Amino acid sequence: MWILRLNMTDHSYKLEDILERYKHLGGRGLTSTLIYDEVDPQCHPLGPANKLVFAPGMITGTSAPTSARVSVGAKSPLTGGIKESNAGSGWAPALARMGIRALVVEGQPEGEGFWMAHIAMVDGKPQVAFMPADEYTGRDLYEVYPEIYARFGNKVHVAAIGTAGEFGYPNSGVAFNDMKRNPTRYSGRGGLGSVMGSKRLKAIVIDPTDGPGVHIADEGLFKQGQAKMREALMEHAITKPKGGLNSYGTAILINILNEAGGLPTRSFSAGRFEGAADVAGEAIFETNKERTGKEVYNHACSPGCIIQCSNTLYDKDGKEAVSCIEYESDWAFGPNCGISDLDAIGQLVTLCNAYGLDTIEAGVTIGVAMDSGMIPFGDAEGAISLMHEIGKGTARGRLLGMGAANVAKAFGNPRSPTVKGQAMPAYDPRAVKGIGVTYATTTMGADHTAGYTIAPEILSVGGASDPLKAEKGKADLSRAFQKTTALIDSSGHCLFIAFAILDIPSGFEGMVEEVNGMFGTNMTGDELVELGAEILRRERAFNEKAGLTKAHDRLPEFMHIEPLPPHNVVVGLPDEVYDAVYGEL
Amino acid sequence: MWILRLNMTDHSYKLEDILERYKHLGGRGLTSTLIYDEVDPQCHPLGPANKLVFAPGMITGTSAPTSARVSVGAKSPLTGGIKESNAGSGWAPALARMGIRALVVEGQPEGEGFWMAHIAMVDGKPQVAFMPADEYTGRDLYEVYPEIYARFGNKVHVAAIGTAGEFGYPNSGVAFNDMKRNPTRYSGRGGLGSVMGSKRLKAIVIDPTDGPGVHIADEGLFKQGQAKMREALMEHAITKPKGGLNSYGTAILINILNEAGGLPTRSFSAGRFEGAADVAGEAIFETNKERTGKEVYNHACSPGCIIQCSNTLYDKDGKEAVSCIEYESDWAFGPNCGISDLDAIGQLVTLCNAYGLDTIEAGVTIGVAMDSGMIPFGDAEGAISLMHEIGKGTARGRLLGMGAANVAKAFGNPRSPTVKGQAMPAYDPRAVKGIGVTYATTTMGADHTAGYTIAPEILSVGGASDPLKAEKGKADLSRAFQKTTALIDSSGHCLFIAFAILDIPSGFEGMVEEVNGMFGTNMTGDELVELGAEILRRERAFNEKAGLTKAHDRLPEFMHIEPLPPHNVVVGLPDEVYDAVYGEL
Repeated sequence: MWILRLNMTDHSYKLEDILERYKHLGGRGLTSTLIYDEVDPQCHPLGPANKLVFAPGMITGTSAPTSARVSVGAKSPLTGGIKESNAGSGWAPALARMGIRALVVEGQPEGEGFWMAHIAMVDGKPQVAFMPADEYTGRDLYEVYPEIYARFGNKVHVAAIGTAGEFGYPNSGVAFNDMKRNPTRYSGRGGLGSVMGSKRLKAIVIDPTDGPGVHIADEGLFKQGQAKMREALMEHAITKPKGGLNSYGTAILINILNEAGGLPTRSFSAGRFEGAADVAGEAIFETNKERTGKEVYNHACSPGCIIQCSNTLYDKDGKEAVSCIEYESDWAFGPNCGISDLDAIGQLVTLCNAYGLDTIEAGVTIGVAMDSGMIPFGDAEGAISLMHEIGKGTARGRLLGMGAANVAKAFGNPRSPTVKGQAMPAYDPRAVKGIGVTYATTTMGADHTAGYTIAPEILSVGGASDPLKAEKGKADLSRAFQKTTALIDSSGHCLFIAFAILDIPSGFEGMVEEVNGMFGTNMTGDELVELGAEILRRERAFNEKAGLTKAHDRLPEFMHIEPLPPHNVVVGLPDEVYDAVYGEL
Repeated sequence: MWILRLNMTDHSYKLEDILERYKHLGGRGLTSTLIYDEVDPQCHPLGPANKLVFAPGMITGTSAPTSARVSVGAKSPLTGGIKESNAGSGWAPALARMGIRALVVEGQPEGEGFWMAHIAMVDGKPQVAFMPADEYTGRDLYEVYPEIYARFGNKVHVAAIGTAGEFGYPNSGVAFNDMKRNPTRYSGRGGLGSVMGSKRLKAIVIDPTDGPGVHIADEGLFKQGQAKMREALMEHAITKPKGGLNSYGTAILINILNEAGGLPTRSFSAGRFEGAADVAGEAIFETNKERTGKEVYNHACSPGCIIQCSNTLYDKDGKEAVSCIEYESDWAFGPNCGISDLDAIGQLVTLCNAYGLDTIEAGVTIGVAMDSGMIPFGDAEGAISLMHEIGKGTARGRLLGMGAANVAKAFGNPRSPTVKGQAMPAYDPRAVKGIGVTYATTTMGADHTAGYTIAPEILSVGGASDPLKAEKGKADLSRAFQKTTALIDSSGHCLFIAFAILDIPSGFEGMVEEVNGMFGTNMTGDELVELGAEILRRERAFNEKAGLTKAHDRLPEFMHIEPLPPHNVVVGLPDEVYDAVYGEL
């Protein structure tokens, strides 16, 4: 098992045997530990000292279900702290099966040109070829991906940045291919695309042919765990085939959050949107049924997934138009912008994929621009036009490419729905207080996936917690979720397995056995969760050295003074609650 | 003696007797102490919880020479920390003579309209009238000021914001009237204009008629100190009539810094500019001589100044065109942008005054935009056009109105010559290391006036220190200057008295006697400097609570890795040097 280092300064590479210290890490655990060990927290995120690390999860590349995640880590140009953002893609198991536990992109070349790296097995080892990539820059990734596949063959997997990353935007992601080889699976958050762009690396193409595969230390135990995990996923109402996620996708949450009064509407001015039903997951399902004449269930983002939550929106002629419209993307451009036209939302999501942008950051940015008077709420055509400006790099586009917090600054607008410079996802913390504690305190900037308390607060999964109750217990809730999440993000499993393993104890056992089977270890569930806590401590230590303090673990002031309809509540949590999350870790 | 509070939420006001704790404070000491006492360091700078404080210096309003400074303080929207920015203007002694030791602007109204406050003496007390000010918004301040004077008479003094402050830009200052009633004297740094704008306050007009004047506790001692100060100023080569500053203005520094290899050129790419001589103070003097047919010496920015360093640039017809072109402004738009056309530089400075912008921040922003490829270096017409966009609030203008650090972010350009988000002034820290330590560590963000080590490093004033020597002693040097500066900024004296009092011991004695005479106290010089240190500690404590840490006390990475011609030096100071400044305060 190797760590592969690409040195972009001189376009050399180095294959290292993985150190003992890293052997039982994967995904977020590995990216965050490598960043912690090797990157100066005070470095400029776009300078030569930052590193971009790709790591498949602990069990990625095996036959464990729903485990094809790749973590991408670096110092974030958006938050100024450590960043891990993961995506599901065939790229992840392919990297794992080449024996590469982590791919570390280092240095920075002279000159303006962009490069790509092609990695393939030669004589049993990964070999890297660097080649100019200027033919792919400045263009729509939906055009670029087919060209790359035509050139290198359909067995390869492709990670790339769009123009957003080339331009160095704080809002820029890293795209990975989906099952149809389109650039739609994103490590979107935190501006990692611009870190890749700063190293003048346009794409990483990997060909896993003849890879050694993933070594499993204890096949029996592993298979036992895998079976338990599979059973739990097949059983839970949210994760099972034709269950909630497979039928309606993550956008099933639109109606649920709207009902709860926590669906941020018109840039966090209200918690309920009159057009919610028109853009909900159910509406996508019904629209597709009408347009195709049949019930269309969702597909997987990556090989081996049971949940299969990725939807497709079909156009009026019954042809595939957009894939995938996640809840967050749907909300960001829909209710958050006062837009209730599904096709327009689909087009906005597609533009994010085309230009290499994070949908949450982009949608919240457009919302802040609307809130600041740039265009009116509900102006779908205006939003589409702004998105093109971002993708083309006009002056207005540069402004918007900076993300929501910066656009609020440019307009002197204190209504900035951001934490640590990162845009808030689709849950208003005034109406769902636990997720607000996660937004405020996670090492990642406002991020629902870092500690998804929505499970007990809204979905009654893993217990129940009153979303409107401003109580000290929200700190404990968020902390528990943050620890477990750091573990799941390291495992290589998709976070959505959480629904099943929170409610079905054998599912959690399954994950523990998978990991122990993989490494030949004998860790308890508690020990694994403690590993999650240890990862958080490393991330937190990095952030402290980078200059992030308790003052950054706060929600925006306007949420403390501006009541949110329909519940007409403000956040109402004292600082001590936020401080208790890491204070008592 | 009063503190006058303007409550912008309901347009009421309150006149309070000044508390004992504030009685012996003035200027920066008073603004920073009030901000420290009353403003939540975690508040949004443009929200209702921030306060904007105006305070004349300890001895402002007396006949002490060169003492007409007003400090403006708030939490800064640019740096996120505490801010004090002072200006010389008749506004300052006028406020003092009305018995107002501090004017505190609080709260925030509903609605979009702007207001002005008119303050005049009625029955021996300041009375405030609030009136709509929308007729003055969206316009050139050079048009607005004459209208305000026409309306309220020539005895009033006017503080106002331009469109930059109305728009909420992080780059926006507060303008004060000069001796010709033009809006040219600025508390420019740190975005204080937008704080005033966030309170919907366009202008503060004060009419000092019938003010009680300033009470001096010990007239004899005060007069004795004043005489010593006057003598020192009249004697020192830099401050005396027809001396360096009176002849060539602050722009006398252009040639000096160019010679020293520390004049930041083309956005901090070199330390020497081939066109320096064409834009130097001497060139302004010679140009005026040629255009007017006589030697023109400089004038005072405010009543009672001996130094009189404010220049005027005459146009080709021998008419007054621009006043004043300070060294910093001259440099920011000149060498820093690769522009060597004095008239163009003058026009750019005028646009800053017209729109309410800080010249340093604006010039460095244009420089970063040039460095990022928006327009070429040396493109004066392009720069003028960009300045109009800033003033008009186009999308490009909004982007540039955010200041240099943010524009660097929008372009993914790590060459951001800023500290704590604030643009660096006209001394490259690679070639003048002590000033770099001041930039890095002052509570204010990159600010030369916070600890002007240029005196010993370049001007051989107050001793001598090798500017190129990377030594621990730079921490002691910067700390000593920062302490004394906090005192001078509190006294009401212009910082330029430092030249005289550093070299002429009786000058410093004079300042001590002025302060003791004013308050009837018996403080030693050391005790007064310790008061300066105490002010720094308060500011630092505020900043720490606001989330600023040692990681923010650093110079930009590129200055550590990119050698600066002609000396081809990098910064070369270890972190310990920066940490020692406040660590040993």
